[in-house]
Amino acid sequence: MVQGASRGIGLEFVKQLLEKNERGHVVATCRNPNEATGLLNLKHKFDDRLSIQQLDVTVESTIEECAKSIQERYGSLNLLINASGVLSISDKLQPETTLSKVQKSSLLFAYEVNAVGPILVIKHMWPLLKNGGGSGTERDVAIVANLSARVGSIGDNRLGGWHSYRSSKSALNQLTKTISVEFARKKDPIICILLHPGTVDTDLSRPFQRNVPEGKLFTKEFSVQKLLTIINGAKRQDNGKFFAWDGQEIPWS
Amino acid sequence: MVQGASRGIGLEFVKQLLEKNERGHVVATCRNPNEATGLLNLKHKFDDRLSIQQLDVTVESTIEECAKSIQERYGSLNLLINASGVLSISDKLQPETTLSKVQKSSLLFAYEVNAVGPILVIKHMWPLLKNGGGSGTERDVAIVANLSARVGSIGDNRLGGWHSYRSSKSALNQLTKTISVEFARKKDPIICILLHPGTVDTDLSRPFQRNVPEGKLFTKEFSVQKLLTIINGAKRQDNGKFFAWDGQEIPWS
Repeated sequence: MVQGASRGIGLEFVKQLLEKNERGHVVATCRNPNEATGLLNLKHKFDDRLSIQQLDVTVESTIEECAKSIQERYGSLNLLINASGVLSISDKLQPETTLSKVQKSSLLFAYEVNAVGPILVIKHMWPLLKNGGGSGTERDVAIVANLSARVGSIGDNRLGGWHSYRSSKSALNQLTKTISVEFARKKDPIICILLHPGTVDTDLSRPFQRNVPEGKLFTKEFSVQKLLTIINGAKRQDNGKFFAWDGQEIPWS
Repeated sequence: MVQGASRGIGLEFVKQLLEKNERGHVVATCRNPNEATGLLNLKHKFDDRLSIQQLDVTVESTIEECAKSIQERYGSLNLLINASGVLSISDKLQPETTLSKVQKSSLLFAYEVNAVGPILVIKHMWPLLKNGGGSGTERDVAIVANLSARVGSIGDNRLGGWHSYRSSKSALNQLTKTISVEFARKKDPIICILLHPGTVDTDLSRPFQRNVPEGKLFTKEFSVQKLLTIINGAKRQDNGKFFAWDGQEIPWS
């Protein structure tokens, strides 16, 4: 299951999961399936292996509906990628350049989408992931991979700014870590990891690409290829860890 | 200024600031001044040095009103302690013991009170802190001290649970760090620090004191005495750091 799959990194995950494997089903979710042309194009090519479902992380009932539908159709999940995320929306959220521009509404909105949303998705997919446990894959665990960002690292924060985004990603990191502890304690066949994709050429990063050093702006294809390598090679001892695209572990500090 | 001063650690800060110094004004804020008996008792004893003002961190207009009033009466601030915080409220927020009990409303509420609130207070007090800059104290900087908690440290999270509280404190840590970077870059005479008070015998911790090892449950008097030692000794190079009650720096990991 790829949550947040209509474009950017999420869509690329769906594409590579379908193209690089000869079998297996992918559930791709997004807010507006009818407008998700990238997914609809893939559906033409992989009709029997791709299911597109409506899910809005800010509306918990859509998450529950989606879990119910997956339960009925497949009964289990072996991989959940939370790829949705927001950095800027005109008139609603702008990455802050100074404290004096920080708005309560922006802080709450980024938190709701980037931290609360993925956690609620895991909450409702938990029984399905437990049923899956990696069976039929090369792994002996199901994997939850949450897309985070290096700017969510607190000690690594040398530039300041982007209060709402940074704070929401630090919170996502903490929540993912918290969940990973419970999965381990209960010996569930699931691990959670956090992924930093690098700065990738997507709609999310486009307004902010000016200051990216040459060679450091990745294509979606490159970044997702690297992230899938990490996911495919993930082991139980990686539970709760935060990895960059190149496999290096990112400390919280 | 002590924000969140009606009881617990906040009230104790007000008390010690008044008793241990022979001069200087303290602005104590809380949601319901008329019910704040602890503050009202102190007001009898320190009438001319203590001002009690209404402030609710979830209502930004009350923060703005408070800043305006301090501006008119004193024109500056040399110390801002954000002591408000929520861990449990019956029927609204319960520290979660498992992911399956995590509620969106709890996550958002804890974030609003514990992370967003203190940040909005700093935003509106910023010009006053710049005016103060520590003048008339032994320090050459104004200090913002945010009460955090060791459970907000991500790498230190070995027990899991308490999703809403942990996440809100990690976010507070990140936001405080982000603000400290801006203060340093602008060469403002202000530093921000985060404080872990230990487990202190207050209303906040009372329902959860059962598992505290002997000798590890501190009195308010002891904890605040230790925290004031850290505040009074804070230097520019401490900006953005996270200290435990004993002065040991807490890593984000």
